[in-house]
Amino acid sequence: MIKPRTPPGVMELLPPDQIAFQRMLDVIRRNYERFGFLPVETPVMELSEVLLTKSGGETERQVYFVQSTGALAKSAEAGSPDGVPELALRFDLTVPLARYVAEHEHDLAFPFRRYQMQRVYRGERAQRGRFREFYQCDIDVIGKDALSVRFDAEIPAVIHSVFSELDIGAFTIQMNNRKLMRGFFEAQGVADGELQALVLREVDKLDKRGEDYVRETLTGEGFNLAADAVDRIMAFVKVRSTSHADALAQLAALGDHEALREGVAELREVLELVRAMGVPESHYALNFSIARGLDYYTGTVYETTLNDYPQIGSICSGGRYENLASHYTKSKLPGVGISIGLTRLFWQLREAGLLGNAAGSTVQVLVTQMDAAHLPHCLSVAGDLRRAGFNTEVVMEAGKLAKQFKYADRAGIRFVIVLGEDEIANGTVTVKDLRREDQFTIDRHELVSALRVELAQAEALQGTHA
Amino acid sequence: MIKPRTPPGVMELLPPDQIAFQRMLDVIRRNYERFGFLPVETPVMELSEVLLTKSGGETERQVYFVQSTGALAKSAEAGSPDGVPELALRFDLTVPLARYVAEHEHDLAFPFRRYQMQRVYRGERAQRGRFREFYQCDIDVIGKDALSVRFDAEIPAVIHSVFSELDIGAFTIQMNNRKLMRGFFEAQGVADGELQALVLREVDKLDKRGEDYVRETLTGEGFNLAADAVDRIMAFVKVRSTSHADALAQLAALGDHEALREGVAELREVLELVRAMGVPESHYALNFSIARGLDYYTGTVYETTLNDYPQIGSICSGGRYENLASHYTKSKLPGVGISIGLTRLFWQLREAGLLGNAAGSTVQVLVTQMDAAHLPHCLSVAGDLRRAGFNTEVVMEAGKLAKQFKYADRAGIRFVIVLGEDEIANGTVTVKDLRREDQFTIDRHELVSALRVELAQAEALQGTHA
Repeated sequence: MIKPRTPPGVMELLPPDQIAFQRMLDVIRRNYERFGFLPVETPVMELSEVLLTKSGGETERQVYFVQSTGALAKSAEAGSPDGVPELALRFDLTVPLARYVAEHEHDLAFPFRRYQMQRVYRGERAQRGRFREFYQCDIDVIGKDALSVRFDAEIPAVIHSVFSELDIGAFTIQMNNRKLMRGFFEAQGVADGELQALVLREVDKLDKRGEDYVRETLTGEGFNLAADAVDRIMAFVKVRSTSHADALAQLAALGDHEALREGVAELREVLELVRAMGVPESHYALNFSIARGLDYYTGTVYETTLNDYPQIGSICSGGRYENLASHYTKSKLPGVGISIGLTRLFWQLREAGLLGNAAGSTVQVLVTQMDAAHLPHCLSVAGDLRRAGFNTEVVMEAGKLAKQFKYADRAGIRFVIVLGEDEIANGTVTVKDLRREDQFTIDRHELVSALRVELAQAEALQGTHA
Repeated sequence: MIKPRTPPGVMELLPPDQIAFQRMLDVIRRNYERFGFLPVETPVMELSEVLLTKSGGETERQVYFVQSTGALAKSAEAGSPDGVPELALRFDLTVPLARYVAEHEHDLAFPFRRYQMQRVYRGERAQRGRFREFYQCDIDVIGKDALSVRFDAEIPAVIHSVFSELDIGAFTIQMNNRKLMRGFFEAQGVADGELQALVLREVDKLDKRGEDYVRETLTGEGFNLAADAVDRIMAFVKVRSTSHADALAQLAALGDHEALREGVAELREVLELVRAMGVPESHYALNFSIARGLDYYTGTVYETTLNDYPQIGSICSGGRYENLASHYTKSKLPGVGISIGLTRLFWQLREAGLLGNAAGSTVQVLVTQMDAAHLPHCLSVAGDLRRAGFNTEVVMEAGKLAKQFKYADRAGIRFVIVLGEDEIANGTVTVKDLRREDQFTIDRHELVSALRVELAQAEALQGTHA
């Protein structure tokens, strides 16, 4: 007998949680499609040579390699595993996107808008809340040769749409621009990119170590920055706009330095179009401390935080990049995109008690069975319900009604149909609404329309609460 | 520069095909949920020790093993890979189901009805139409200690519902029963299970090698069966019922042998309940030649074939098994289930030209842009459409209308919105219906309701064709 268990670092859910998770996936997908993004799926296994183009480093150490029994035996025969196995599991959806776009370049229409929602794999150290297998839900728009900054404005509109419907509390989409940051640091005499990154890393410690510590470090021996430059840097990274007008004012307040001009112009255009797309100004803000992948992003960058749960960190991040697929094609493919790490987000929401439990089952109706002789009748009623689109389960083995009610209640099934001798004789059905603790008996032929009314009312009520 | 390419044996799709594939997944999932099955997802990686409980053989040779960079380095240091790596990719959804049910036994309600639609991995020899990564879409009902044969009758109802909505042509759900087969062979003097399997393997060659060949083999030296027994076997495996009444008659015609009784009773009950569930008798039949996994299935077995494309083989198969998880738990867990191998099915339908191309894009509306100054207005109209639930793409860079129309047409987007100077001044929009080659100009505030009517009409029309 072998103990049934999963490997560490994976999230496996019982059906009620799986239903909640699936609903989140559905909401994200529906909103991605609503903004015109097209579905793509790529294989979980890529050729190692194709996947691991980037020069070693952190990412490569976390890769999972794949070998068939045959390949494994061959490498064992050779005495030792010779180098890197042929196949590896993807560790994000960005490298597969680059490979996909480069491979199918001539079959795609640009700007190419794709969404992809699949699992990725990282050999992370096992740790609470860290996953080795997790869902990423990505959108990207890829241009050929060029991609207008206007596309950067669609991204916050998608984020707003997704998280409004997910209904997990107030959130703010925080924006910055890498060109603006670079220009600002240049204006402060920090022109070197690597030095900028080091300064930003120190600035990132503001919350944890306090202002004095960071100031001392930056004016101290390692950095030797002038005190007034450090003051300006500290003031800059603390900028958070409080409204649309304030965001524009904050940009204007930066002045008309040559080095800042492009970044300011881009952010201004993005802000104006975000407003034109109907995103409420309460839901977006400038945040000049947001840097993100310094070696990758080149323009607008995004993070999204839950207003009441800042400790969860960014729940949706991304930005603009210069060239998606330089390892695979000579074509220049600039893009902009975001990613939602849904497995981790789901786990965090559940830990924070933010998932609620009102979701209920995917099953909407349970048809009970009091007597084995009634089964054909029960099945026929269930057939009516299914053809009308209701998710319906039939109790296949007759038994005590109380037990069947209890099962429905525990499973989160809202409606229970009772078909006793009387109902069958009279051509009626009794409907028990477990949520409203109510019941009524109607003509069998009115069942479908009655349930439709009940569900429409319930949905309207939910809409009011949202 | 690295050549962008996928490993052999995977199916990667361009967006139009991916949309068609996703729609098939959605139909299957919707129907699985309609019959009360609950979603489960399991990790793609399982512990090898847990996954590979079965004694070696074919399956094990086709397994993909997984090692993180760290594990790989450690096994290299050790001089040679020591035995089997810790992790492996699942090769079906049945073993993970067994592990899941055994692991979570005390948190699940039995009978446990689950569906699972995920990819599985097999190190098959690369070959046209054979995949190393493919979707399986499974349902199973698992009982604790016992599971009534009535559950076997729900399965054909689900199959009928799925393939009716998939709308890929006429199909027949073919049923048999392993107890009946065993009993029949016993009555012919072939009592030994292994011998039965060998006889069946010969009988399986009927189509390819012809009746004479099979008859000679079975009466010949290896088998030494009596000529009249062989006659009866040949007649038996040729039984195909042509209607519900004929199916019952075929069962009755088998006579009242003790050895056949249980199988006949089970098939009869299943047939009666399948009819009670509203499956048309044109869609199910007895087929006494269907054997399937002889070492696994113990009662009802199912195959489903497309009437006009028998060469595609079974598109949905499964059956009843005695005990799901004997490797993981002492509990007896009988079950019944089916699997659709969607990747292969999709590939075959596409090869046979059965996919059609009427699906179109997930994008329903394209909002064009004639002048960069109009963009905020375009975005605002698009916002209205999206809030009303339409999947809407906006052309973000103004340009020639003809080019934008061409793009919509190629992409399969049905409605194009034109917003020229006149429309913007008058508060109207012009809608071009590319499918009906029609256009009309209406008040902007009537746009949403007008498109709803158009789409409802289109859907009603499609319903008529189906």
